[in-house]
Amino acid sequence: MSVVLLAGGVGGARFARALLEVVGPSELTIVGNVGDDLEVLGLHVSPDLDTVLYTLAGLSDEERGWGREGETWNALATVERLGGEAWFRLGDLDLGLHLVRAQALAAGAPLSAVTARLASALGVETRLLPATDDRLRTWIATASGVFAFQEWFVLRGHRDPVDGLRFEGAEAARPAPGVLEALAGARLILVAPSNPFVSVAPILAVRAIREVLERRAAPAVAVSPLIGGRAVKGPADRMLARLAGGTSPAQVAACYAGLIDALVVDERDAHDLAGLGEVRPIVTRTLMRDAGARRSLAEAALGGVRA
Amino acid sequence: MSVVLLAGGVGGARFARALLEVVGPSELTIVGNVGDDLEVLGLHVSPDLDTVLYTLAGLSDEERGWGREGETWNALATVERLGGEAWFRLGDLDLGLHLVRAQALAAGAPLSAVTARLASALGVETRLLPATDDRLRTWIATASGVFAFQEWFVLRGHRDPVDGLRFEGAEAARPAPGVLEALAGARLILVAPSNPFVSVAPILAVRAIREVLERRAAPAVAVSPLIGGRAVKGPADRMLARLAGGTSPAQVAACYAGLIDALVVDERDAHDLAGLGEVRPIVTRTLMRDAGARRSLAEAALGGVRA
Repeated sequence: MSVVLLAGGVGGARFARALLEVVGPSELTIVGNVGDDLEVLGLHVSPDLDTVLYTLAGLSDEERGWGREGETWNALATVERLGGEAWFRLGDLDLGLHLVRAQALAAGAPLSAVTARLASALGVETRLLPATDDRLRTWIATASGVFAFQEWFVLRGHRDPVDGLRFEGAEAARPAPGVLEALAGARLILVAPSNPFVSVAPILAVRAIREVLERRAAPAVAVSPLIGGRAVKGPADRMLARLAGGTSPAQVAACYAGLIDALVVDERDAHDLAGLGEVRPIVTRTLMRDAGARRSLAEAALGGVRA
Repeated sequence: MSVVLLAGGVGGARFARALLEVVGPSELTIVGNVGDDLEVLGLHVSPDLDTVLYTLAGLSDEERGWGREGETWNALATVERLGGEAWFRLGDLDLGLHLVRAQALAAGAPLSAVTARLASALGVETRLLPATDDRLRTWIATASGVFAFQEWFVLRGHRDPVDGLRFEGAEAARPAPGVLEALAGARLILVAPSNPFVSVAPILAVRAIREVLERRAAPAVAVSPLIGGRAVKGPADRMLARLAGGTSPAQVAACYAGLIDALVVDERDAHDLAGLGEVRPIVTRTLMRDAGARRSLAEAALGGVRA
């Protein structure tokens, strides 16, 4: 079977790893978010793609939740001492990848080709595609002003309540080579337990991706990022409360209106399945705390195709 | 008094430190070689300027002879794993500086302004000027082909005998702001015990610098990089033998024909002072093995102004 996963950062990466414990690497295509990409120290950084890469390559720092295990911070110590741009925490091991990518991009390679090369060099067999090779950037509107995504998320610690989002470049962005073909040929389309607003919405904002999902032949199943109405990590719960009016499964499903057929919800949210409409709930434990839990979540989501 | 030092990498850096044990930081201006600058991993690297900076800031690795003490190599390990450009050894601490500089250059700052900013951030009070802000690159002609300097020096381990040198851009290059003024106002002009062909010649190849030296009012004193006819480090002796016909003081002086009034030579070369012409020999111990030796070499060279 062929499965396409729309994925953001940590939640997307961990769910991808869970799926790969059930399906083979050639059966899965991951479409990654690039709305939180940024230029820092003159280098193009793709935090969500990298989190997926590092996780699937077994290089990620599981405790910190981002970046590489065994990381050091010497380059940034120099940058800081020299009064340079040190707010975005690029470790030394991580920097090597950004340098190689930036050089390839500067030489004219599209992000998808560079990502494929990096994945291959790191031994990641699963296909990882950026949603688009074109420039797509998430902007966050708050009472304190409009911020580039990472400025809001990292520099301001995602404390400012979000009034709105804009995905610069999304309407005109073309899906990266292979994205539409993968979606059209999928037996199942999955949406990872990532933040619907800042991790998945930038992917769906690419018009051609959204349109192929609206006309999908295969079932589409999203995994809610909430457990007991709370995000495992990050501001998804606060954003749902503020922007969607609540944190129940119905509000998660509403983020994907017309785009999904089923929603995997945690047992702790199963008391409140009203308002899902035509979206079928799949209730299970969603916390990926160990291999067994990951596998059973993956199987529940993959069950969407068998139903 | 005001002294201008023309300096390459290690020899220049150590001699600059020696001078600063005798004169105050505001009395010295260092004009650094940029002929061995290169672009690596998309970053502009100025190895000679950086060696001077690190040495004067007390950050250099004295044993290795280049780069920073306590250096780590994690970024490059990633670059290597990803099949990127890993031949030029950029350590993590060092990379931070290159990132900050590359970003400033990309924003339009001239190399001299960036160098001043880096020096200031590292607490280096002495003025360090690149010979030019314009592009100037040393090319090395050998029987195996013509190579960019670092390709010959690092990648090929400076094993190919040198048939000739070319300083791309030198004739048209304008001296960096402050260079001509410093030379014109100097009480003494010094040439460091650097490689005459690849460290000092690129500076002298800048037409306006060469012209102001030819017309100098102040005495100019070079320090021979040879001890007993051998270079302390690097290929200077082999290059002198091949390109100047020998390794005696006269052949060193010939590299600076018309540009110096005295040559500091090591005691071990004092038996062979023939052919110096109007260049006055200053015989002393030139190996900078400790603070005492550094100081006495500096005093011998500075004595040029008092003679």
